[in-house]
Amino acid sequence: MKGIYYNGEDAVYREDLPMPVRDEKESLIKIHICAVCNTDKEVRKGYRPDFRGIMGHEFVGEVVESPNPSLIGKRVVGELNAACGKCIYCRTGRPTHCLERKVLGMAGKDGAFAEYMTIDTDLLHVVPDDLPDEIAVFTEPLAAALEILTQIKVSPDKNAAVLGDGRLALLVAQVLALTGIDLTVIGRHEDKLERFRSFAKVTDCGEKEGYEYVAECTGSESGLPMALTLVRKKGTIILKSTYAGNLSIDMSMVAVNEITIVGSRCGPFEPALKLLKEGRIKLPPIELYELKDFEKAFASDAFKAGFFFG
Amino acid sequence: MKGIYYNGEDAVYREDLPMPVRDEKESLIKIHICAVCNTDKEVRKGYRPDFRGIMGHEFVGEVVESPNPSLIGKRVVGELNAACGKCIYCRTGRPTHCLERKVLGMAGKDGAFAEYMTIDTDLLHVVPDDLPDEIAVFTEPLAAALEILTQIKVSPDKNAAVLGDGRLALLVAQVLALTGIDLTVIGRHEDKLERFRSFAKVTDCGEKEGYEYVAECTGSESGLPMALTLVRKKGTIILKSTYAGNLSIDMSMVAVNEITIVGSRCGPFEPALKLLKEGRIKLPPIELYELKDFEKAFASDAFKAGFFFG
Repeated sequence: MKGIYYNGEDAVYREDLPMPVRDEKESLIKIHICAVCNTDKEVRKGYRPDFRGIMGHEFVGEVVESPNPSLIGKRVVGELNAACGKCIYCRTGRPTHCLERKVLGMAGKDGAFAEYMTIDTDLLHVVPDDLPDEIAVFTEPLAAALEILTQIKVSPDKNAAVLGDGRLALLVAQVLALTGIDLTVIGRHEDKLERFRSFAKVTDCGEKEGYEYVAECTGSESGLPMALTLVRKKGTIILKSTYAGNLSIDMSMVAVNEITIVGSRCGPFEPALKLLKEGRIKLPPIELYELKDFEKAFASDAFKAGFFFG
Repeated sequence: MKGIYYNGEDAVYREDLPMPVRDEKESLIKIHICAVCNTDKEVRKGYRPDFRGIMGHEFVGEVVESPNPSLIGKRVVGELNAACGKCIYCRTGRPTHCLERKVLGMAGKDGAFAEYMTIDTDLLHVVPDDLPDEIAVFTEPLAAALEILTQIKVSPDKNAAVLGDGRLALLVAQVLALTGIDLTVIGRHEDKLERFRSFAKVTDCGEKEGYEYVAECTGSESGLPMALTLVRKKGTIILKSTYAGNLSIDMSMVAVNEITIVGSRCGPFEPALKLLKEGRIKLPPIELYELKDFEKAFASDAFKAGFFFG
């Protein structure tokens, strides 16, 4: 079958990949569309040096084979992390942090940039009939934005700033805006900031009196130091950005000003699907390519690019 | 009167200090005893370069004059931070973070290393009759330990580690132990660790499976990196240590492992007084000196040293 394979040095397009074979717990999925995430670009740069296999994890597909007969023929999205069920994190309700986890397209498990894929059946979520593939493919990144609400109380009588104007920022900002909170988006790109204008103040710098919540979604190492200048004393920084290397930070300021910093990653799929189905999250169109044109998808500056299968 | 004065270069003992004069909101306090805090040592090193005045902020005294007649003759302790009442933090219930605050013995306000002191009457708390001065003087540091419980939910069905075996660690560990949580204290000094043995496991290294809560009370810049290795994924680090200079930290690890870091400082006096009165906090004896022997008090390696007035 066709797929995009990471060979330890780079992503390559192949047509000779073997059809995947599911184990008894898994379902076989025919991929409809899948999207390129920033993490996929990091994988190409060597972010996961031990990984060899098919890349990709943001997908919508159709169940072809499954131990759960009611799923066959259903459209699904799927969670990334296959947990061991035994380690301290699995035993205490944190399977996305499983010490032995396999991660779709990144660690120990072939991903979704291919015609077919296998995945643990427990990780699947059925896509509502009236939700098109092109929107459902945003379930995983929207779930990551919703993770914030599982971690902290966002009190709508306060104020919040989102740092960044990219993909993650647009999803995080919309999740925060749905609480009714006084919201400011701080970014550098006039054209991207337009997407936020209907539900947030947009600016290239923050207000002097600061913000109770600052969601750091820049993807850049300049983000956290900026967040520390914008957050109010006793306020909360939500840390969404990841990047290689250490940061130099005045942690005494964090102690003295009683700042809370909350790291935030993968989130819950069902509320994401619900919000998408209800049309509460507005998204620019995804730009879709054939698999063989994967370099175009990776290089695209569209809000989101991905692959379709003929 | 006698007092310890910071002249911009060092602490000096003086006998020629003028008797303080209270303003209409303030009370005049005759100091019974006062204790040397680590912050006082930092002030001597130039931590507050703009400060000139009488040092000290951990005190027990007696009200001599006050706009509140019912306080006269009462034994009291007092909060450090005199707030402006007008800034964003005062208006939103965070007076200890007031932007214009005056801090006893540190910023804009003479402190307690003297025979008499004035202080905003609102900052005073009456000491219960049966609570001796030598215990009541721990109210302020115990309040700082209790601040943790005002900031986060400490769930007693989890586990916690305290990093450090000094003064702050002993207070924080006892506050955590009162929740019934499975508690480990990690320190390097066998003799100091003895103080924890009746209510916590003591060790010089952490358990492999880590801790849901890690209270960083080392006062050293090696503390936070160690806390990051000990905290469980989705766990919480309470940051109590302050020190000059920046730390180099892998913040991507904080995001990916969804760690929460909570800076923590001054806390509530009334519950501290209540716990001390009820005898729930065990403390080694304080070592008291005359003011003129202040160098001995500053150099003491007792659990706590301070001054008495003849």
